[in-house]
Amino acid sequence: MGVVIPLGESKKEPAGIEKLIGLVAGGMERVNELILAKAGSDVEMIPEVANHLISSGGKRLRPMITLAAAEMFDYHGEGHVKLATSVEFMHTATLLHDDVVDESDMRRSKPTARMIWGNQASVLVGDFLLGQAFRMMVEVGSLDALEVLSAAASVIAEGEVMQLAAAKNLETTEDEYLAVIKAKTAALFSAAAEVGPIIAGAAKSDRAALRSYGLNLGLAFQLVDDALDYGGNAKDLGKNTGDDFREGKITLPVVLAYRRGTDAERAFWKSSLENGENDDTALENARGLMLKYGALPDTIQRARHFGEIARDALAPLKPSPQKDALLDVVEFCISRIN
Amino acid sequence: MGVVIPLGESKKEPAGIEKLIGLVAGGMERVNELILAKAGSDVEMIPEVANHLISSGGKRLRPMITLAAAEMFDYHGEGHVKLATSVEFMHTATLLHDDVVDESDMRRSKPTARMIWGNQASVLVGDFLLGQAFRMMVEVGSLDALEVLSAAASVIAEGEVMQLAAAKNLETTEDEYLAVIKAKTAALFSAAAEVGPIIAGAAKSDRAALRSYGLNLGLAFQLVDDALDYGGNAKDLGKNTGDDFREGKITLPVVLAYRRGTDAERAFWKSSLENGENDDTALENARGLMLKYGALPDTIQRARHFGEIARDALAPLKPSPQKDALLDVVEFCISRIN
Repeated sequence: MGVVIPLGESKKEPAGIEKLIGLVAGGMERVNELILAKAGSDVEMIPEVANHLISSGGKRLRPMITLAAAEMFDYHGEGHVKLATSVEFMHTATLLHDDVVDESDMRRSKPTARMIWGNQASVLVGDFLLGQAFRMMVEVGSLDALEVLSAAASVIAEGEVMQLAAAKNLETTEDEYLAVIKAKTAALFSAAAEVGPIIAGAAKSDRAALRSYGLNLGLAFQLVDDALDYGGNAKDLGKNTGDDFREGKITLPVVLAYRRGTDAERAFWKSSLENGENDDTALENARGLMLKYGALPDTIQRARHFGEIARDALAPLKPSPQKDALLDVVEFCISRIN
Repeated sequence: MGVVIPLGESKKEPAGIEKLIGLVAGGMERVNELILAKAGSDVEMIPEVANHLISSGGKRLRPMITLAAAEMFDYHGEGHVKLATSVEFMHTATLLHDDVVDESDMRRSKPTARMIWGNQASVLVGDFLLGQAFRMMVEVGSLDALEVLSAAASVIAEGEVMQLAAAKNLETTEDEYLAVIKAKTAALFSAAAEVGPIIAGAAKSDRAALRSYGLNLGLAFQLVDDALDYGGNAKDLGKNTGDDFREGKITLPVVLAYRRGTDAERAFWKSSLENGENDDTALENARGLMLKYGALPDTIQRARHFGEIARDALAPLKPSPQKDALLDVVEFCISRIN
């Protein structure tokens, strides 16, 4: 199943996120407690559905970024724990709704909530978690943080609708595709990073630096994710490889292979992604075309480009363990593909 | 199709909401402009879906209540217009998600958004409107108003999940049913009313009065709605009469008729609501049993009870045109059934 992707450059060892995990371990313990507390409800089905997803072993990258981005500016208090939990709830709500929208059966190697409790529960528990996220933000009381996170909520939904409208349209350009992932993925990373300096009362330039870091990290993260869906190994990925192909999603590897292809190859893409002729043979063929045109290494190259911007966004900040850890995250996101 | 409900008492002319409409006309013009502006997006599908529902002629009762509840305490400014619009967006988002959850085909005499654009767009545009609602609240900048409205968002979703869990369970008690509608309907009416005095900087006792008014008005409103689904006329109602029956929803008229029935009648309720034998003949039979046991007039009687509590909640407030108008709303909600 796994395909070895010829990356050309990048021979160094993939950096991990051990530094980040170590730095925010204390805060993440409280985030995890808060997740359990705030996903609770007298309505039995709510914690059942929520815990199914919450306990399924996501990396919790976004809340870790929020914690590190606050502690980087010497924040002392509990507000960043609440904001980090809000960010994770917004993410979880999005996943619940996404699975309904995409009609996904599996996520992180487990059946999706909608397969167990139905679409209805997934929609409503997502709504509940979003409501809880806002309540926690309000408790923190920072209007600036509220503004950033509520704007992200709108933009994420806008991105999902954009993606729905672009679905199965192979004429989607790379720019249009970037606009989609900027909204549906990068906006939350950006907000997660920016609320750190906000709650710490850091300077405007620090807010801008973290916002830019998060945005570009998010773009890189999503591009690598898209490449992994064609090049990764289902076990490592914790989701079904080939999902994007079967769902007819137009991601950058497809955009590149389609635009660089012959007329006959473009006809293949149309039949498989627009008309649903997407069995395993078609998937292997798709992978072959991506190999032929270097679509996966070039997608990673694009990710690397945004990763560089993320790194440069943090460059002016004074050295700190948090800065080091956040720089490692960039490398971690990109090197997942190796 | 329409069934005349013997209400027993209540012979007076149904009061209207003309007073309320007249009082808040200026504010509602700005609410309507804001609705159009904030439902806008470069992503074409979003305003299409949003406008379908927004332009479908709901009464906009909730935002009118917010405006009147603020003006009642001499509020001058534009914050109440934004909060009223937020409330309407929260309501619209709930409707979009409800139609998906209930698999409804028609609402307000028009096909539901999900029938035209699909479940996916309904889920996502609902999410977008919820995000926009929060952005507007944040713009207003009142943390108290944010707290009340974000709590309502969680509670509404909780109520919907409760309803889902109770669906097709005829052993639901009246208390359990009241807990559902308190969460899914009354919480938003309550929040819509309470944010008025909040933004006007009124006293705590005024907040409590309006909160209680909204909560009980909401309960009365939902109970009458439930009765209308069995006793109303499809044209007046703007939705399909009998929808609740076909969807297997356990509402108070059903709870009463079921609990008061014979074993044979209870077997009928089980076959129709739990097992889906719900054709037109079954619906007529259900209506016959409700008539036999006075289930509809007693549901209205319960609504009247909450209506009285709503009226008494406002009693200590000094006379004002807004107070008169809000008292009329209670009578309007209940007399819809005549």
